[in-house]
Amino acid sequence: MAVSSARGMRDFPPRDKQRREQLLGIIRETYARHGFEEIETPAIEDLERLHSGLGGDNEKLSFAILKRGLGADDLRHAGAPEDLADLGLRFDLTVPLARFYASNHAVLPPVFRAFHTGPVWRAERPQKGRYRQFVQCDIDILGEASHLAEVEVILATADALHRLGVTGYTFRVNDRRLLTALLSAAGIAPEFHGDALITLDKLDKIGPEGVLTELVERLPAGFDRGVLAAVLSGESIALDPAVISQVMGGSPEAVAAAKELCDWAMAVAEVLGPEILVVDPTLVRGMGYYTSSIVEIAHPDMGISLGGGGRYDGMIGRFLGTDVPAFGLSLGFERLIDVLPMDSTGHPDRVALLYDRDNPGQHLVKLKIQLVDTGHTVRLVPKSKNLRPVYEQLVADGFSRVAEVTSDISDSASLAWRELSGGN
Amino acid sequence: MAVSSARGMRDFPPRDKQRREQLLGIIRETYARHGFEEIETPAIEDLERLHSGLGGDNEKLSFAILKRGLGADDLRHAGAPEDLADLGLRFDLTVPLARFYASNHAVLPPVFRAFHTGPVWRAERPQKGRYRQFVQCDIDILGEASHLAEVEVILATADALHRLGVTGYTFRVNDRRLLTALLSAAGIAPEFHGDALITLDKLDKIGPEGVLTELVERLPAGFDRGVLAAVLSGESIALDPAVISQVMGGSPEAVAAAKELCDWAMAVAEVLGPEILVVDPTLVRGMGYYTSSIVEIAHPDMGISLGGGGRYDGMIGRFLGTDVPAFGLSLGFERLIDVLPMDSTGHPDRVALLYDRDNPGQHLVKLKIQLVDTGHTVRLVPKSKNLRPVYEQLVADGFSRVAEVTSDISDSASLAWRELSGGN
Repeated sequence: MAVSSARGMRDFPPRDKQRREQLLGIIRETYARHGFEEIETPAIEDLERLHSGLGGDNEKLSFAILKRGLGADDLRHAGAPEDLADLGLRFDLTVPLARFYASNHAVLPPVFRAFHTGPVWRAERPQKGRYRQFVQCDIDILGEASHLAEVEVILATADALHRLGVTGYTFRVNDRRLLTALLSAAGIAPEFHGDALITLDKLDKIGPEGVLTELVERLPAGFDRGVLAAVLSGESIALDPAVISQVMGGSPEAVAAAKELCDWAMAVAEVLGPEILVVDPTLVRGMGYYTSSIVEIAHPDMGISLGGGGRYDGMIGRFLGTDVPAFGLSLGFERLIDVLPMDSTGHPDRVALLYDRDNPGQHLVKLKIQLVDTGHTVRLVPKSKNLRPVYEQLVADGFSRVAEVTSDISDSASLAWRELSGGN
Repeated sequence: MAVSSARGMRDFPPRDKQRREQLLGIIRETYARHGFEEIETPAIEDLERLHSGLGGDNEKLSFAILKRGLGADDLRHAGAPEDLADLGLRFDLTVPLARFYASNHAVLPPVFRAFHTGPVWRAERPQKGRYRQFVQCDIDILGEASHLAEVEVILATADALHRLGVTGYTFRVNDRRLLTALLSAAGIAPEFHGDALITLDKLDKIGPEGVLTELVERLPAGFDRGVLAAVLSGESIALDPAVISQVMGGSPEAVAAAKELCDWAMAVAEVLGPEILVVDPTLVRGMGYYTSSIVEIAHPDMGISLGGGGRYDGMIGRFLGTDVPAFGLSLGFERLIDVLPMDSTGHPDRVALLYDRDNPGQHLVKLKIQLVDTGHTVRLVPKSKNLRPVYEQLVADGFSRVAEVTSDISDSASLAWRELSGGN
């Protein structure tokens, strides 16, 4: 009888759990140092809130919770399964943040720097590297209309990645208004911009020719392929307002958006160095709620995104009734876990206390507590004939010393110490 | 339009969240120092696992998750609401621990010291102080048949309570086998012991007379009220095997169980002092899976239990197929939050950086990052006419210093510092 966790859900035994807490701790501590404050929201939200249209395709993946106290009659009268559910598990941390802000804004500061980490759940088909419960790490500034929000969030994120030991990544940046200006310059009417962006977002998968072919299929004839083709070619663009606005069609809107983008991107570059920022005129970021600045953390060596975000000035208003400017970024925690090497450092304060299982001695527990009280982490380990695998496990768990009770008589006991090493 | 969290679920704004993480961090760090290893299990388990009979009344309170992809046909063919659900949210951490051990025992050490903290969910009627999502903190030793398990778990728990600043509590201890011996000595047949224990467990609520009256109603006539009345009187019993076994009926089983209880309780008392242990011959602990030692952490001043646990040697076998000795204790995290005073200590490394919103200056962000890099926690705060409420909030959040940009010209900037105090 194989007893396993529910399909697509993972157990974390001690080594995995320790590593996850260590990395999550670094992210949380870094965000706190940068002046962001941690919040927590419940795993469960009202289903109507989760289905409010802000979650895109993820809304369809929410786990729905059966109403309590249902009887056979309720089943007969229900028109659809949804009638039997009133609650659901959150599928991201953005919808709960917007709901949290609407519920608690009276006790929050006018400019609210928040971070929010925790599990989210999606009823995806389980497959390698894709889980039904996984952790997200979000950082957001609510109530700050200026680009100080972009700068603070991105610098805090870069510091977290630095402290985690991640190198070689870039922030790819763009502005939704530049994309709008580009599409308008190509003669695409505003009502088709949404469709066009969905196609543009497939550039990585289907390439420039594929994007142009799909645009021809989806859009009314008559738009200017040449304007788009130049951007789709993938040539990098300098962090220069004149260059960017020209590439994106040259309209007054493009000029204004390019200037804003360069303003905050240069403030970031002044601290992190210019090579970390890449203007990517084809960056779309899928979610419909982004209004201007958008960012993606690319790791070219690994061919993956480590996270991303953007400005979503209209979203909080959907719950609150009043618009609140907002910029946020989400780190892909499960990807970070995958790409970062295991830490197997020995800790001098971790001590294994060896004892004889058949004759533990009267002072064993007191010796343990003395070691704990003097700052050690202590694990009791019974002696066995073959200690090699025991020592190997201790080294893998970061233990660096073994103490053995050598005498345990009357009212005193003494310990013999031994250093552990990788080859012991 | 009032937008709130789902019924019975709580948001935690920054101050609440910080406090919860601080207290949980103390518990987790203490357990780790005592050689226990942290595990994590998913929030969701297969519903059949949750309904395996180990959760007592709590099983009825589990939130059930609707199967995905159901159609109208499935509703018509379902006999009962349960037919439409396949998953559920965990209602405690004990059933998931047993399931975890069965799933992962091959990679776990023979004696596995585990701790496990996280939210659990119960569909209770929401009321003051009772929530539908709350945190449990469990510590367990699996695979240790000796009473070293009781001693290590209780000492680690006492250390956690000490580091949290909890004083004035006692460990009330008993042994299920002593209760069995007592009921047998009173002439109650084994098949009625379960009923008798349920009644005995109501002693706090209905008093000794109420218990005796209810026993007369529930049990066949002919048992010896006198034997029970002596125990129910509530007189404290010395930690002495002869005294305990005599009070509990004097049978050979009582003598053996009393000796074991005193053995481990005295080992605990040697470290913590005798006054922290109280033998309570009426302590039952509700759950049916306890087999011998049982413990409750009582706080007489507050009239509440801060947690409890016991030995459950038969439970893991329900999932694994092989019995594994086990002893565990659960701390009531939400109660600890309620009883412990708020920490409002100022932290010298927390700095508020004041700036002019209309003219932030070109070095503001760089100054912030310099402070962060030198070990400070930095919050940007715009200047305003009335700084008093701003300073009060900063003091409440543990900030102890304010830095103000005094000049920000060309390539340099300087800061003026000011200490914050409670009365500032």
